[in-house]
Order: sequence, then structure tokens, then C-alpha cells
Amino acid sequence: MAAVPVWSVDPRTGKRREQVAVEATAAEVDREVGAAHAVRDALADRAVRAAFLRGAADLLEEARGDLVAVADAETALGQARLTGELARSCYQLRSFADIVDEGSFLGIVIDHPDPSATPPIPDLRRYKVPLGVIAVYAASNFPFAFSVPGGDTASALAAGCPVVVKAHPDHPATSEQVAAVLRRAAGQQGISADVIGLVHGFDAGVELVRHPLVSGAGFTGSIRGGRALFDAAAARPVPIPFHGELGSLNPVVITESAAAERAEEIGSGLAGSMTLGVGQFCVKPGLVLAPSGAGGDRLVKSLTDAVSATESGVLLDHRMRDTFVEGAAERAGLPDVDAPVTPGAGDAHTVSAGFLTVPAARLTSSGEHDLLLEECFGPLTVVARYDSDAEVASVLSRLPGNLTATVHLSAAEEAGEGRGAELLAELTPLAGRVLVNAWPTGVAVASAQHHGGPYPATTSTSTSVGGTAIERWLRPVAYQNTPEPLLPPELRDANPLSLPRRVTGLG
Amino acid sequence: MAAVPVWSVDPRTGKRREQVAVEATAAEVDREVGAAHAVRDALADRAVRAAFLRGAADLLEEARGDLVAVADAETALGQARLTGELARSCYQLRSFADIVDEGSFLGIVIDHPDPSATPPIPDLRRYKVPLGVIAVYAASNFPFAFSVPGGDTASALAAGCPVVVKAHPDHPATSEQVAAVLRRAAGQQGISADVIGLVHGFDAGVELVRHPLVSGAGFTGSIRGGRALFDAAAARPVPIPFHGELGSLNPVVITESAAAERAEEIGSGLAGSMTLGVGQFCVKPGLVLAPSGAGGDRLVKSLTDAVSATESGVLLDHRMRDTFVEGAAERAGLPDVDAPVTPGAGDAHTVSAGFLTVPAARLTSSGEHDLLLEECFGPLTVVARYDSDAEVASVLSRLPGNLTATVHLSAAEEAGEGRGAELLAELTPLAGRVLVNAWPTGVAVASAQHHGGPYPATTSTSTSVGGTAIERWLRPVAYQNTPEPLLPPELRDANPLSLPRRVTGLG
Repeated sequence: MAAVPVWSVDPRTGKRREQVAVEATAAEVDREVGAAHAVRDALADRAVRAAFLRGAADLLEEARGDLVAVADAETALGQARLTGELARSCYQLRSFADIVDEGSFLGIVIDHPDPSATPPIPDLRRYKVPLGVIAVYAASNFPFAFSVPGGDTASALAAGCPVVVKAHPDHPATSEQVAAVLRRAAGQQGISADVIGLVHGFDAGVELVRHPLVSGAGFTGSIRGGRALFDAAAARPVPIPFHGELGSLNPVVITESAAAERAEEIGSGLAGSMTLGVGQFCVKPGLVLAPSGAGGDRLVKSLTDAVSATESGVLLDHRMRDTFVEGAAERAGLPDVDAPVTPGAGDAHTVSAGFLTVPAARLTSSGEHDLLLEECFGPLTVVARYDSDAEVASVLSRLPGNLTATVHLSAAEEAGEGRGAELLAELTPLAGRVLVNAWPTGVAVASAQHHGGPYPATTSTSTSVGGTAIERWLRPVAYQNTPEPLLPPELRDANPLSLPRRVTGLG
Repeated sequence: MAAVPVWSVDPRTGKRREQVAVEATAAEVDREVGAAHAVRDALADRAVRAAFLRGAADLLEEARGDLVAVADAETALGQARLTGELARSCYQLRSFADIVDEGSFLGIVIDHPDPSATPPIPDLRRYKVPLGVIAVYAASNFPFAFSVPGGDTASALAAGCPVVVKAHPDHPATSEQVAAVLRRAAGQQGISADVIGLVHGFDAGVELVRHPLVSGAGFTGSIRGGRALFDAAAARPVPIPFHGELGSLNPVVITESAAAERAEEIGSGLAGSMTLGVGQFCVKPGLVLAPSGAGGDRLVKSLTDAVSATESGVLLDHRMRDTFVEGAAERAGLPDVDAPVTPGAGDAHTVSAGFLTVPAARLTSSGEHDLLLEECFGPLTVVARYDSDAEVASVLSRLPGNLTATVHLSAAEEAGEGRGAELLAELTPLAGRVLVNAWPTGVAVASAQHHGGPYPATTSTSTSVGGTAIERWLRPVAYQNTPEPLLPPELRDANPLSLPRRVTGLG
């Protein structure tokens, strides 16, 4: 069988730039996973692991010029955005190095014997160990931050797990170059380069999640692709955890008094958030509940002005562009749907941003307008005009799970008047992150961050951004009645590694 | 369609005791789940929730005489064991009440804004909220501790989730009585009794895991039943977490020097552990790697004496008894397998304990002897005699995941001589709890406990016993830029509930 070439493509022209690699066959996937599994103990030393993560950040920064150039050539995301995204990725690698050093993620608990418990408690000492080889599925829209050097890779390496990345076809050249940098960083610490594997190809991705030596998977992408891989992970003879981020509508509710008070500010803020990165964010606000009446009208006017002034942009690939143009037209063609600024095709290679309006009453029961409750990847949002709080509640109750849910309140509502608290209570069951008077785009790398939410936002209750993302790649082990000399150093009485631990009983 | 009766059966005679209920139809499951979902906020107040758990323990203790009597009549587990099991369950309920009061399980993290981060960190405050209605599948072998008032129920209620239990057909009358006690305990705190649902019937169990308003499931039982429910949970339009404990062989390795030093003690200890509760423990040691040669011979002799002296016992039901008799005969009939004490049928209603021996070389490559690497529920263990460390490693490498793995060492090995550390390193990938010079039966309710392990031991990386079991029923939510008056009290600056929190930044 002839090898299937993997091309790097310029989305600004649709033309092939160069052949980067070939798609991995099943045998090649097996080789890559086998190599990673063979060195699964290479990251056992936490100090070395942290140095590796910091070294990777340093080397990525050194290679910034080249990496940003190739990523821009493949994704058209622009130098500024990509430079920022790479900086974010380096910050994230260093944050995980700090987490590795600090050690709380090991979840160490030591129970000294307690004969008074029912049943009596023996000497029990628990910590967490790495799961094994982790498959990482890179996202289209973040060639750095959610791809080869992104949060899944950084958190898995931080947990002590080797990684095999399935590159995204929208940036194969970037993926190869970044993987080479990461392998070089491993080498600098005396770690085998096999802790970083890379494969290309759709079939290779399916082989990867099915491979018996793969112990977990992280994914960022579409509902369709993610669900297929989730299903494959669950159907294995030995199922594995599949932490997928699949899709999100990211609803926004604007109260009547917020619109009355700040219609213009909200309208222009919304325009900025929904068109950022040509609308290619998983946290793009895709459904906005705005009041009917004067305040809402002003908001729509402000949104119209701002979106009209937005230049057309290049999506990550032409298939995505076609899907957007088609999806926008289908939505705009629904009864009672207006397009104050029509979203759709720009020139042959671009799309132009736009938004639709619809009476919220059209969304309170199932029907053809349910299409408006599905994510449309690209610079498009839907403004649903509501007449009553009951209508808002009714639309919210029909939404699938989301990464984020946002509410815009007036100053009085912020201070506790009106139904701000009630709205927050309605939004909390819908999402993993709830925002007030802010926009969901921009996901900080922070301890309290949660980038996840009810399905289909994510397939598990975990997060793919922030410190707790490391928890996904660990499992607890408890040692019972184990003599001091045989215990892992993390669990010995003297605490030779000075780790944070919870200790119960007298000792 | 006629209602299907649910009978309470006496396993000592195989005779029906009484009709307890009827199997729940799909409509009845829907009603039970709907009622639980309607009161999903009933457990929101942590103080009330803790009082409910403590009150439930008190009421269960008050009803001890009746509950133990009915459980014994249905399960034949005996008054002493059942009294201890109920005490354990009450201890567990109170332990979770303490965990609820203490509040660390909420995982509160507060990040004050940090403009120096990349990207800048806004005000972010995270804690965990209950998932919603949890389906609990009761186990056959623990009518209290892993059934209606068991760890899954206690941890889910502690997390703030209503529960619908699918009763085990081996103890439907006990299940009904216990559920009534729990509902009474809810009522005493002014909580709706609907936070505790109960259904009977195999089909009802399948309906339950598929119900759109069920948000998670806990299961203890067989690989076959558990995997079918796991698959159903994963195949839902909205998949849910399924925390199942499915099966475990619980390997034991006895070093040559341990056998030389303590053959008789190890042999009698093993006999006690494998016959405890008529071998009906998920942590029963089912495969023992013992050295060939004189020390191992002494161990087998000691095991023979102790197991021969064990009285025959009643299994939980007659189907289980037939499966055991058949499974024991099939295993004993394999080439090169001997039965120093033949396991199998006792009288018409009992089984007699026994054990098999086999050269470990028979288990180092796949073949008909793989049957010996499958759990056989009941009083039977397999002693594999090994000639070399390589043989031990080879057999261990072929084992599926386990709840426990045990090693017996000599005093010198305990002190760090020989290959004790190496053996622990070989056992750690196999199990969630590793024991030295102890027996796996007896699972303490403790902070450092981990009752889980690689598949099929459990279907997730979580535990069903110990404090961290509560984590299974929660999901994080982060609030961004949310004004103080609108924040949940848990996340307000003043910390009005005095909860343990991690705070970053200046504030």
C-alpha cells in the first residue's frame, strides 16, 4: 500500500506548501506507542521532569521566530496571535513545572494505624502514580496551546506520562517542528526522546486510542470526531479515560437593565469576542439572549456597527470555510431569522463575520430552529430576543452542556438587586465556567481555572486548562503495612522529599 | 403486562421467604428518578446533609436487630458478620458526615487577579458542585456496606446528590427495610424522602443507567454485569461517569525466604483470608505464587490442614453455588492441576472450600490455563508453584488489573535485603492497593484507602471506599469576575463558612 502523504497547506490560498510526512500505518503507530511505553519510567524523577518542562519552554522561546512563521503559514492566525499563543504555552509548561516541584498533585495521605476505627485502620499510605502512555489529539485552532506543546501534553508529562500526539492536519509542519524541540529538551535532561511521539493521519488517530499500551487520551476538537474516539476508548477490551473537549455554544444572557445601562459597551464587547481569531474559539459566545425593546435594539445596533467594521478573515482550512458558509446560510434561511450583518463567504479564501437575530420564542420548544442551538465554528453568533424571564429560563433549559455561560448585569444587579443571583443559579448547571460582565474568550492558565463542562463541552468532569488538568493522568495506589525501607520515598515517615502530605493518627 | 414479583429467598434452603416487591417498569424507574431529580437541591445545605448522614447511622443502629435478622435470612452471611458490616456502614456514614463538615472535598481555589501572568489571570473562584441524581447498583456480597446504605450511597449523599439504588436480588427485603430507614432519617432533617429511591429488577437497572436525568453511577458486582452497564453509560447520547468495581484476582507473591521462614503462618493466614465469608469477597486472594521446594511444600501442607478443617458454607444464592461448583470442577480438571483439598459442592445447599495447585510455568503463556487467571467467586484459590523470579514476573505480567496485590517477605527482605523493593515495583502497576505481609480481605474506611485498580478491578481511577470516594459525584465550576454579593458563600472573600481554601495572588 502506498504511503499517504501529509501536506502542509496555506489556508490563505488553499495551495499545498510542502509534504511534511506520511500518514502513520498501524505498524507505525504501534512502534511509536511501543517506544513511548518502553521509556515510561524515564519521567519518574520529579526534579528531572520539572527541568524538562522548563527546558522545553526555553527551547520553544528560542525557536519562536521559526515556529511562529511556520504556524502562520499553515493556519493564517497571524504573527501577533501566534506569538502570544506560544508565550502562553511556555507559561503553561513552566506552571506545570512549578506544580511538579510543589507536589500536592501526588495527593499523599498517610493513615497511621487506628484500632478504634470500624473496622480497625492499618498503616495505609496513598499517593498517585502516572497512568502510562497518553494519546493527545491536537486541536485545529491552537497550533501551540492545544496541540503538540499544549495543555494535554504539558499536564501528561508533568504527571510523569510519555505522550504520543496525533497531529492536526491543519498544522503538520508546526507539529513536526515543535515535537523536535520537545525531544531536544528531553535529550538535554538525559531523558529519552521517545517520551514524545507524533503521528499523522485520521486512521492513525483511531489506531492510537485503541492501542493496548495507551492508558488515557486527551482531545480537543469537534463533537463528531471526539465522540467517535470517546466511543472507541470506551469499547476497548480495557477501557481508558478519554478526556475530550468537544463543543460548546457558550450562552450569554443580557438583562434588561444591563442593556438599558450599557447597550453600546456590551454590543461592541460581544463583537470583539465573537470575531476574535475569526471566531475560531471553543469559548466563542454563540448564543446571546438579549431583551426585546429599546435597550436590546441599541445593543443590536452597536453589534451591527462593530461587526460590519470587521474585516473578513481566513479560516484554518477550506473545508472549515465551506462548512461555515453553508452553516451560516442554513441558519440565516430559517423562518423569523434576520441577519443584520450577513455572515458567510468573503472572497474565495475568506469568510466575513456576521450575526443573526431570532425571537427567543422560536427556541423554547424543539423544531427546525434547534439548529441555532448547535455550535457554528467561525465568526457568527445568534442573538435571541426575549420578552420575559420565563423565556430566558425556557431557552436555557434546552441547551446542551457548555464550557462557559455568561451574564451581563447592571450595576444595581451586580450589587445584589434584582435577579442576578437567580440567573447565576440558572447558568451554573449549564457550564464549567460562569462569567459576570466579561467575555468567555481568553482562558487563563490558573489554579482556579476550569475549562470543561457538562457533555458535550467535555466527556469527563475534568479540565484541560489550569493546574488540576494534571489529575487526569494519575491513579492512586495505597500501600498497606509496608515496611519503611520498601516504601517509595514520597511515603516514608521522614518525608525526605519534603512533600505536602496529609497525615492522620498518632504515628 | 403482569407485574414480575420480587422474592426474598433463603439461600440455606433455596426456598422463597416472601414477596417483597415487584420489578420496576420503565415508567416506574422514570418516576423514581424524576422524584429524586425534583429534589436535587434538598441536600444543598452542608450542615443539614451531615446531620442526615449521622441521623441515618443512628437509625440504622436502632434498627440493627431487625436489619441483621432479615439480612441473615436472605444472605446466610451470619449474625456476627452482618452486625460488623452494619457497624462498618454506620461508621462510614459518620465518616462522610465529618468530611462534609470539614469541606476540603469542595476543592475551593480562589485566584485573585494577576496581570503578570500570560495571559493575565482575572478573578477566578472554583469549587465543586454535585453532579445530580446518582444510580447505585448494590452488590450481592455486602447487603449493607456495598448496598443501599453503603459507600456509593453515603459518598453520593455526602456530595449532595440524591440516589436511586438498584437493589440486589439476593437481599430485596433488606434493601426495602434499609431504604425505609434512610428515608426516615431524611424526614427527620426536613429533607424529602425522595432523595432515596429504590428499584428492583434487571431491566430496571438498565433503564436506570440510561435515564436522561441520571448523572452518574456506582456499581459493585461482576465483570459481565458491570461491563454491560458501563457500555450502556458510555453509549448514552450524554455519557455519564460510571464508577464500577467489576472483578479482581488479587494476586499474592510469597518469596522463597518468606516461605522458609513462615510457611505455616502464611498457609493458615491464606486459608483464613480465602475462606472468609465463604470466599465471597472481591478482595479474596485468588492466585498465590508460592515457591517450589521445601518452604512452598510446607506452606501447601499448612494450607491443606487449615482448609480441610473449614466447614462447608452457604453462598448468597443457588445460581452462585452452581456457578462455583461448575467453575471449581472445570479448573480442577485442567492438565497438571492438583486439588490438595477439592473445592466444590457440600450438601444440596452448600459449598466446600478448597484450593488447587499448578506449576507456574503453565501460566506464563496463553492457553487453557488462562481460566485460572479469572476470578472464581467463592472459597477457592489457586497456588501456582514457581521455580524462578522470572517465572513470577512472567505470570504477573499476564494478569488483568486488580484491587489488591500482596507480597509476603522474610524479615530480612522487610529490612530491605533481597528483592522486596523490586517485587513491590512489579506489583504496583497491577493494583490499587499493595500489601506487605498482610491479607487483602478487610478494607478499612480511611483517608488513605484506595479500593480500586486497573480495569477490570474498576472502570475508573477512583475508589469506592475511603474519603476520596466523594470526588466521584462532583464537578468543578469556576466563577469569573463575579461580584461578591452574587458569589456562593463558599467563595466569598470573608469565608463566612470557614472552609479550607487555597488562595493565590494578593487579593
